[in-house]
Amino acid sequence: MRILRLDKETKQNVLEDLLKRSPNNYAGYEQGVAEILDKIKGERDKALFHYTKKYDGADISAANVKVTEEEFQEAYEQVDPSLLSIIRKALVNIRTYHEKQRQYSWFDSRPDGTILGQKVTALNRVGVYVPGGKAVYPSSVLMNIVPAKTAGVGEIVMVTPPGKDGKVNPNTLVAAIEAGADAVYKAGGAQAVGALAYGTESIPKVDKIVGPGNIYVALAKKAVYGHVSIDAIAGPSEILVVADETANPRYVAADLLSQAEHDELASSILVTTSEKLARDVSAEADAFAEELSRSEIIKKSLDNYGYILVAETMDDVIDIANDIASEHLEIMTKDPYHIMTKIRNAGAIFIGEYASEPLGDYFAGPNHVLPTNGTAKFFSPLSVDDFIKKSSIIGYSREALEEIHTDIEAFAEAEQLTAHANSIKVRFEEG
Amino acid sequence: MRILRLDKETKQNVLEDLLKRSPNNYAGYEQGVAEILDKIKGERDKALFHYTKKYDGADISAANVKVTEEEFQEAYEQVDPSLLSIIRKALVNIRTYHEKQRQYSWFDSRPDGTILGQKVTALNRVGVYVPGGKAVYPSSVLMNIVPAKTAGVGEIVMVTPPGKDGKVNPNTLVAAIEAGADAVYKAGGAQAVGALAYGTESIPKVDKIVGPGNIYVALAKKAVYGHVSIDAIAGPSEILVVADETANPRYVAADLLSQAEHDELASSILVTTSEKLARDVSAEADAFAEELSRSEIIKKSLDNYGYILVAETMDDVIDIANDIASEHLEIMTKDPYHIMTKIRNAGAIFIGEYASEPLGDYFAGPNHVLPTNGTAKFFSPLSVDDFIKKSSIIGYSREALEEIHTDIEAFAEAEQLTAHANSIKVRFEEG
Repeated sequence: MRILRLDKETKQNVLEDLLKRSPNNYAGYEQGVAEILDKIKGERDKALFHYTKKYDGADISAANVKVTEEEFQEAYEQVDPSLLSIIRKALVNIRTYHEKQRQYSWFDSRPDGTILGQKVTALNRVGVYVPGGKAVYPSSVLMNIVPAKTAGVGEIVMVTPPGKDGKVNPNTLVAAIEAGADAVYKAGGAQAVGALAYGTESIPKVDKIVGPGNIYVALAKKAVYGHVSIDAIAGPSEILVVADETANPRYVAADLLSQAEHDELASSILVTTSEKLARDVSAEADAFAEELSRSEIIKKSLDNYGYILVAETMDDVIDIANDIASEHLEIMTKDPYHIMTKIRNAGAIFIGEYASEPLGDYFAGPNHVLPTNGTAKFFSPLSVDDFIKKSSIIGYSREALEEIHTDIEAFAEAEQLTAHANSIKVRFEEG
Repeated sequence: MRILRLDKETKQNVLEDLLKRSPNNYAGYEQGVAEILDKIKGERDKALFHYTKKYDGADISAANVKVTEEEFQEAYEQVDPSLLSIIRKALVNIRTYHEKQRQYSWFDSRPDGTILGQKVTALNRVGVYVPGGKAVYPSSVLMNIVPAKTAGVGEIVMVTPPGKDGKVNPNTLVAAIEAGADAVYKAGGAQAVGALAYGTESIPKVDKIVGPGNIYVALAKKAVYGHVSIDAIAGPSEILVVADETANPRYVAADLLSQAEHDELASSILVTTSEKLARDVSAEADAFAEELSRSEIIKKSLDNYGYILVAETMDDVIDIANDIASEHLEIMTKDPYHIMTKIRNAGAIFIGEYASEPLGDYFAGPNHVLPTNGTAKFFSPLSVDDFIKKSSIIGYSREALEEIHTDIEAFAEAEQLTAHANSIKVRFEEG
């Protein structure tokens, strides 16, 4: 891995480089996605099955679009029992963590009859998109469904593209049932997003669509945003390791590569105050890159967006970590909790040499759907918050309103909204 | 106001009618907005001042784009002292309410060394857009700034278009200072949104842009979403009153008209079980519509999107209220808190005959920036939540990781992510 000294110019270059991976640069596909969405809106099931034939090569109709009880049973027979048992263990941790994110309605009352509050309501129906194809990620099914389930969403429907044989991967189906999906439909791509957003004869309209997908799925989600809610558009994966001379170079290198293997656009960055660590990690990473099965992707990813940056001081390390706002941030230093207090921007913060990033992907409990591409400056991990919404509660008595009614009237009149003023006045007009 | 019997067909028609007001139907302006944003990105201040001259007719440069201490003082001299005192009283209530929305970092630890948690961090810098022109709404300045301030945002910058004379409305400036803005810049339209999203020599880049604006502002916000965060795109205002025979028809009518006066696209709907109330409210509303100063807008708005719907049962009333998901919902019935428990979708719920909607616009404390156009099914009022973000915290000891390391490795291998598995394995390899 390349080693650079962290100066002002290098910092600027790295920051600009990383933003090139933005998922916002795909205007060329927008027209095609808009056409698919329009068709789905107009022709519903008919268009959905047409595109499923066209893009997935599968013959799907109203008769077989919904995964049946028999298909679920078949999936349970096919899944590796040891994977099922690991999924169940992971689910315990994921549920326990997300239960702590629950939010509660509250109110505040005053003796004059005033009641002010905030009512928390779960979304009624949510759609979860799960990609198909060769790379199947049951962990992602768990991470998208559990927070919705924990929030108390009334109905969770999942969509995932079928193979040419009209079947869905058994690991995906088992993960869906274990996590608590209410129904699974065989549909993928922009057409599945359209079906969830507008509803078809077979697939019910939802209030929010979450889950990762390819560029067509991402653009379709962006297009229907506002009509329904969506989660953030995910960019390529990222890891940033903050380390000093106490870090184990072998652990640092292995963790950097765990993200590099995702994608040629993935970014793996070590920022350290130790030149020795920089050299050792570089050597370890290069050796791992040769050995690992996804060697080709890893090498390309490291060439593109892999950096080892050597900084003068820990303050410089922290500054660039906050500027990059990495999806995953590991701290391997003498006093990692002290460093954590200075980290403002990161999706998930892994603390100490045994909190390796994949622990968070699969098992610890926190969500692995995290803000990418610098958006940790303003976005949060997927959570129970994404599946609830709030309503303000305002109760007033005559006594309480009387106290302030002339103030409200004057404020409304200052804004030239006389009908607003009138609605207060009528309550105090002479009988 | 027209009175209709609420049957299945009427319900469908009303729901479809309301969605015609969607702010998503303005594709014609997108190209122009994209050009402005591109120019701002490339030429920064130069482009900003060019557009300010072109659209606001004002000569603005780096020397006078930022409102000065003297201009603030001048504003305080010009503002009506009684309005200032009302603003200060309203601020006390708005702050008190929003302080209750604060969220806190938490963690959970186990004796094996596991620490899992969620760190809450305020956004670093936020931009608030405030419209200029004839209709100036200081209440909106308060409602957008207070939640950001309460969240602990480091820097709150406001932008608002100057008049031809290069001045900003004094009520706007005073409201900004009272609420806690750190700086105010004279810029409006898509160019101001671009300046906040990308930064210029004069205006700092922000992490999130909030506040209402015209169609250019709305489209510009939508275009920069993902690069920065934004609040929801607001549609026309709405009120829905749920009432039975106990409601005072004069109060109901006055409240319906308080929203009708905003805009010809505003929607005012009464749903009731009482035919007598329906007739009485219709007569009162028609009488008010003649008297009030914004009579013309009110009449057009009522003709377009005003309805009095008479339902068979209170359950039918509640069903349509939940389907419409109104921005403002008033409950004037015998047992309004009982009805409230059945309301799933509404921006703000006003309970009882003295909780008139304008009370919430100005004074009670809850935010008046609310989800419109059916989006209360999945969006919430503007709140402290909009100005914070979260990072997961994951700390593990060797002991804790050892317990589960083979499970994580197996899960990663089932997903064919061998570098993920490797990063756990290296921690337990034989010395």
